[in-house]
Amino acid sequence: MIIGAGPGAADLLTVRAVQALGLAEVVLYDDLVSPEVLELCPPSAQLINVGKRCGRLGSTQEEINALMIEHAQAGRLVVRLKSGDPSIFARLGEELDALREAEVRFEVIPGITAAAAAAAAAEITLTDRRAASTLVVLSGHHAQSQAGSIAALDPSRTTFAVYMPGPDYGRTARELAESGVSPKTPCALVSNAGRASQQVRFLLLEGLSALRGVVAPAVLIVGEVARRADFPEILKLLARQPVPSPALESPARP
Amino acid sequence: MIIGAGPGAADLLTVRAVQALGLAEVVLYDDLVSPEVLELCPPSAQLINVGKRCGRLGSTQEEINALMIEHAQAGRLVVRLKSGDPSIFARLGEELDALREAEVRFEVIPGITAAAAAAAAAEITLTDRRAASTLVVLSGHHAQSQAGSIAALDPSRTTFAVYMPGPDYGRTARELAESGVSPKTPCALVSNAGRASQQVRFLLLEGLSALRGVVAPAVLIVGEVARRADFPEILKLLARQPVPSPALESPARP
Repeated sequence: MIIGAGPGAADLLTVRAVQALGLAEVVLYDDLVSPEVLELCPPSAQLINVGKRCGRLGSTQEEINALMIEHAQAGRLVVRLKSGDPSIFARLGEELDALREAEVRFEVIPGITAAAAAAAAAEITLTDRRAASTLVVLSGHHAQSQAGSIAALDPSRTTFAVYMPGPDYGRTARELAESGVSPKTPCALVSNAGRASQQVRFLLLEGLSALRGVVAPAVLIVGEVARRADFPEILKLLARQPVPSPALESPARP
Repeated sequence: MIIGAGPGAADLLTVRAVQALGLAEVVLYDDLVSPEVLELCPPSAQLINVGKRCGRLGSTQEEINALMIEHAQAGRLVVRLKSGDPSIFARLGEELDALREAEVRFEVIPGITAAAAAAAAAEITLTDRRAASTLVVLSGHHAQSQAGSIAALDPSRTTFAVYMPGPDYGRTARELAESGVSPKTPCALVSNAGRASQQVRFLLLEGLSALRGVVAPAVLIVGEVARRADFPEILKLLARQPVPSPALESPARP
């Protein structure tokens, strides 16, 4: 079973995901899956971190595939737990190919993807018939190779949701600008969307390179949709601040 | 409170959404919100259909805004329930502007958006580092105005998720083809994703115009990601069928 764990808060999993996770015997999870989501697994379940940031090299994709198949063929109920939605920047395609090849049956349970969680946290929309008819989801890790292909989109009618925009925010901003997105385009940068530690910053694209201290995981939303009705007020507030950070953080969720 | 109701199945709401819905005193819902989701509302809640397909003209956006504000200012706990995720093709921007203008406090709870639900139903991924580095979400209702702007995307490296692709599927296919998407591009067309009545059809873009009997709501996923490892087998099966429908339906969820 492949389950989307959503953005991190345990109550942002779907009911179906929580129920399925409660039956798991083996859980293969990525680093970005939060501890509070892992607490939804039964105490008897074997939890295996297959991520890449444990102070050791993570598992290769081939090792993850092999683990899934090995446990499933041993008759165990295996859950592959991926942060966000499994179909978006989660290497789902490779895992499904391996499962099909091995004739292992599976089901996919979707999750709240980072862009939707970030928009809710920032209290903005992603599409707007007045301002953005298209949403483009791309990864900061590949922004350079995508830059050419997004250059012809009308940036004034498009929202860009950049997954994994850091840690080099300056490069992400530069690549978007080189693709025709105005440096004056409003942005919302959201870390830990939907969790108590949530941070929302509103800024202009050109301000990204001066950002410091952004907590991962973060999502960058670029486009007129980020120009909230109170955006001018926010920018005025920022102009009054003597600090270099061109950002305003919203209060954490209560 | 603005809540994403997801694709239709009651267990594809988030836990947070179900809990919030259980507190509702007034629920303003769209037509696409399914009866099983409405059953999550308390029996005492006043349910108001503000959709547009009830045999009468639906509420205008201004009327919906006014209703939300009126009930909220009367001290009632109002839920604005939108199918899918509120930030994607749901006119959220206009409603948030109205709430801010009226100084009504709100919270947004994200939902499973149609593209994620459809990908899970079709058991495909939306991005794939081997085949699709970018996901473009657009609406069939506006495909024509968007066509020019997507023309320069590399269609062999892009997945298109078309919301509201019908009822004129031929036009949607034509507009995508005119934007440079090959008529031989594989597609997955998913109706009622995640529900017992779910239908998944795999076909080529050029086969869309011959489709009949597609149930709404549907989402069309266009791109190499829809070429499942078993796609050639599916097309062979179709070639053997004497019927005009170029589609294969997956079994409903048990």
